Amino acid sequence: MYRSHTCGQLRLADTGTSVTLAGWVQTVRKFGSITFIDLRDRYGITQLLFNEELNGKLDEQPLGREFVLQAKGVVNERSKKNANIPTGEIEILVSDFAILNKSAVPPFTIQDDTDGGDDLRMKYRYLDLRRNAVKRNLELRYAVNRAARNYLHENGFMDIETPFLIKSTPEGARDFVVPSRMNAGQFYALPQSPQTFKQLLMVSGYDRYYQIVKCFRDEDLRADRQPEFTQIDCEMAFVEQEDILNMFEGLVRSIFKEVKGIDYSDTIHRMTWEDAMYTYGNDKPDIRFDMKIANLKVPITVFVSRQEELKSSAFGSGETGFAVFDNAETVLAIAVPGASEYTRKQIDELTEWVKRPQIGMQGLVNIRYNADGTLKSSVDKFFNADQLKGIANYTNAQPGDLILILAGREEKTRKATSDLRLLMGTRLGFRKDNEFRLLWVLDFPLFEYAEEDNRWVARHHPFTSPKPDQIATMINNNPVIENAADYLNHPYATIKANAYDMVLNGNEIGGGSIRIYQRELQEKMFAALGMDAEEQQHKFGFLLGAFEYGAPPHGGIAFGFDRLCSILGGSESIRDFIAFPKNNSGRDVMLDAPSAIDAKQFDELQIKLDLK
Amino acid sequence: MYRSHTCGQLRLADTGTSVTLAGWVQTVRKFGSITFIDLRDRYGITQLLFNEELNGKLDEQPLGREFVLQAKGVVNERSKKNANIPTGEIEILVSDFAILNKSAVPPFTIQDDTDGGDDLRMKYRYLDLRRNAVKRNLELRYAVNRAARNYLHENGFMDIETPFLIKSTPEGARDFVVPSRMNAGQFYALPQSPQTFKQLLMVSGYDRYYQIVKCFRDEDLRADRQPEFTQIDCEMAFVEQEDILNMFEGLVRSIFKEVKGIDYSDTIHRMTWEDAMYTYGNDKPDIRFDMKIANLKVPITVFVSRQEELKSSAFGSGETGFAVFDNAETVLAIAVPGASEYTRKQIDELTEWVKRPQIGMQGLVNIRYNADGTLKSSVDKFFNADQLKGIANYTNAQPGDLILILAGREEKTRKATSDLRLLMGTRLGFRKDNEFRLLWVLDFPLFEYAEEDNRWVARHHPFTSPKPDQIATMINNNPVIENAADYLNHPYATIKANAYDMVLNGNEIGGGSIRIYQRELQEKMFAALGMDAEEQQHKFGFLLGAFEYGAPPHGGIAFGFDRLCSILGGSESIRDFIAFPKNNSGRDVMLDAPSAIDAKQFDELQIKLDLK
Repeated sequence: MYRSHTCGQLRLADTGTSVTLAGWVQTVRKFGSITFIDLRDRYGITQLLFNEELNGKLDEQPLGREFVLQAKGVVNERSKKNANIPTGEIEILVSDFAILNKSAVPPFTIQDDTDGGDDLRMKYRYLDLRRNAVKRNLELRYAVNRAARNYLHENGFMDIETPFLIKSTPEGARDFVVPSRMNAGQFYALPQSPQTFKQLLMVSGYDRYYQIVKCFRDEDLRADRQPEFTQIDCEMAFVEQEDILNMFEGLVRSIFKEVKGIDYSDTIHRMTWEDAMYTYGNDKPDIRFDMKIANLKVPITVFVSRQEELKSSAFGSGETGFAVFDNAETVLAIAVPGASEYTRKQIDELTEWVKRPQIGMQGLVNIRYNADGTLKSSVDKFFNADQLKGIANYTNAQPGDLILILAGREEKTRKATSDLRLLMGTRLGFRKDNEFRLLWVLDFPLFEYAEEDNRWVARHHPFTSPKPDQIATMINNNPVIENAADYLNHPYATIKANAYDMVLNGNEIGGGSIRIYQRELQEKMFAALGMDAEEQQHKFGFLLGAFEYGAPPHGGIAFGFDRLCSILGGSESIRDFIAFPKNNSGRDVMLDAPSAIDAKQFDELQIKLDLK
Repeated sequence: MYRSHTCGQLRLADTGTSVTLAGWVQTVRKFGSITFIDLRDRYGITQLLFNEELNGKLDEQPLGREFVLQAKGVVNERSKKNANIPTGEIEILVSDFAILNKSAVPPFTIQDDTDGGDDLRMKYRYLDLRRNAVKRNLELRYAVNRAARNYLHENGFMDIETPFLIKSTPEGARDFVVPSRMNAGQFYALPQSPQTFKQLLMVSGYDRYYQIVKCFRDEDLRADRQPEFTQIDCEMAFVEQEDILNMFEGLVRSIFKEVKGIDYSDTIHRMTWEDAMYTYGNDKPDIRFDMKIANLKVPITVFVSRQEELKSSAFGSGETGFAVFDNAETVLAIAVPGASEYTRKQIDELTEWVKRPQIGMQGLVNIRYNADGTLKSSVDKFFNADQLKGIANYTNAQPGDLILILAGREEKTRKATSDLRLLMGTRLGFRKDNEFRLLWVLDFPLFEYAEEDNRWVARHHPFTSPKPDQIATMINNNPVIENAADYLNHPYATIKANAYDMVLNGNEIGGGSIRIYQRELQEKMFAALGMDAEEQQHKFGFLLGAFEYGAPPHGGIAFGFDRLCSILGGSESIRDFIAFPKNNSGRDVMLDAPSAIDAKQFDELQIKLDLK
């Protein structure tokens, strides 16, 4: 060992102890003939004091930032104590030292607030990882890992490794593929998830499976996506949806407790997908704040279950005389608490914000509900005071609120209203990093309509089961959509899935479903997705086969581990919680990967480039 | 939940309790109007008793093997108890049941001794995994995983995930590569190990890292190799070799304790690589038994450190008059305890065994050291009684032993003698599955000579450090081998590494080294392996760069997780300890992978086949 203690370990009670420390030089401060050095390691920082006897040696071997230093000495009480660090009451009176390795001047400072830009920090990731801010993220990640494993172990789950070199069955996202040298002309795929393997393990009787496992998707990357990412992947047999919800509420509570010291004992709310979309415009609502959407006008077909409610909505079927509303498919409003005194400039800025291409609305209607109870609107000429009051009541606005209204096509308007709600929530400080609200979203539609192919796609994945009372609907109807314009009236459009998402502060942190375990139903699902019997057999013959030999009822869930960690760490970016992340082009700029390969490798793999 | 209890849970004390069980039908036995069913799940087997009231329902819904059954009933004391299973004192008096899923007749029996051949079992792996024998293996694997994580956690190690999509730097084994769609013409590689990443983590100050992680090597597969395999991968900073040996002895002891209930408190022997080769003919000797090799004649150059000993060996430099020995480079003997009465037929069979192409020796000399003290040899005409006695003494033979002698080229003869020793050890019952002997093999040569390229290759890997007192030898000499015939006299030939293997029962279960952490030394190493500066920069520029910014002394180890589990489980085959293994052609026969991919995939990846 190059050290007797770490740099975070020594306290006043150790005074007089002879110690050897090793670490990195954080700072060098010279005061006349004495030199102070802050020595840093994973565990903390300890002050070293070099007296004048060591001047000569220090002159011969000058120390710089990030040098690796070993120092021997005696623990000494400091005259000027530093209350900000645990070792702040002591220093080491150095008797001898050795430079274990030198360091060039780092390209950015190794401090919480570094002067390094993103690109530089990615290139020198091994230096960026030295910063406390990044280290705390990886420590949090390990704590989540550990808490999850402990909880799952205590609940009888077994970690069983599933293969990484599997078969390409693209359905949804693109596979990364791996050419096989021993089977020339053929390819493995990297798993997008261990989905079918964990289902096979249930067929095999393993009952409670988990894995914290890398998954791969070759998608065009958005800011917060990585081509390789980690899942906490779980599956249980002989369970119904309620059992899974309870088990994994326990998991998340346990993670909160172990990692954050938070006793999350509140009931975890449950909301149907329809309610989430209707009330928050979003299937992963942030319920840290209220500001619910008032559905002033909505196409009834989209929210079948709310037909009665909608008939009595603010201006459900009648004309308002205001063409923008009358011509719009959907009109949605939110009441922003305490914002009635927003300036014209502030409102103009919000109007510009909703008109940006990413949001894409035509404009923004506002109604100020003044503190004195009067109402003032940007569309006063179309609505009298009673009508404005009616809208205000329908949106549950209070005096002092600012009502914002968007109108347009259903899908776009709903998303825009959700985005606007989140923006206002952020601006008003309703979305606190250290406040956590969990939510289950349930009863997702089983299918989505794919316009380009005029067929169904699985909303969750093709292994998700419909609600038990809708299995017959699925089996007894032909999945083919005869009339594209009328797809919402196809019996499959109303089938709900036994699927559930866990949402934390407006982010989906986990999702899963009760699975299909009957061959006939699975074949019907594949057929609905446009796969004929031959393709089904080629891609999923092993699973259909497994369902012939006594498959039990089962279901599961997968948590996005990177995302979960970033939210717990109070950050928007998953990249900060990954030791060696890739950039938005899928490149590891530190390694400079991907890169060209040798002619010999092409030759052995029997492939060649075919560049466009 | 489909059940109130598992099939392994109920005992006599539960008599009278109403329960619901769910599981698989193991057996159906009819006795007149009553039916017994053994219901199986992950946790055990419980007997169900169907009385005649259920006859009608059973006739309507007949039960078959591997049907998934849910049964309600009351726990009842059995009249005929079964002492062999924990639930053997009770049965369930069934009041109602439901078939949750049917099963076709399985292609082999789901029993410890199955009638399924390897191919069938691999194809229907999901059924094979139901067998108790396989389930026990995966349970053991999970127990090892858990024990390792707990020990490492308690010792301050952090699990930090390293990337799977990295850069291809083939050095030794072949990489699997992954074409990048977003960076057309470029490829990622799958990691052969996280070696450079864990070193970077040490440079970043993480100090104690571990990961239980998949690694990938595209090699032609031998029986006991898999293209993807799992390592327990560890690294520590500020340590010397001794620290690592102590830390990981602790890990293995902890695994023995937690997984096998074995208190492995014996000292773990340490042996140099030279001693292992000299005494056992093998760098991973099985020390469960003695039967050491007697070096009758050995080329001194190969075992430099044993020059003095060799000069006094049985017929070290003198001629014996027996041309087979006199012409051989090497003559090695083992004394097989209690085998002096082997029949002529038995000895002939051994002679045939050493002549097989896999062993490749010309013949086998034997000397019977009879119980009465007389000696009888197959080469009596060349050796008198005193000479035979001399050989017997030199081999440490006792009366009753059979001395077996092989002669030929050094490398081949030594390997053959080692193989023969292991064969005799097995035949004599010295290699018990439930006896465990650990051993450290130390001081490996840093380099091996690659004849085809007349250059050095790294015996462990290119990141392994020479012994501290040999760093100067490495730095101060030109690695180029001027005279191929005389490579053994190149200064690099004698450099030993700070490398260590942990050996269990004749298998390498782990290996590691103290690493190079100085840029200059690392460059010298790369140069010795034939890499010029440009190639070094292209392949390992990030590591050389990292060594510029304060790299600490560090070292680590990786355990072969699959192998470790198989040995602890008393099996030769790692495949039995992997949930979804591949066959010897690297195929997953259950998935039928690898397989062809779509034209669209080729198109997007901008590659095409180039089949020979």
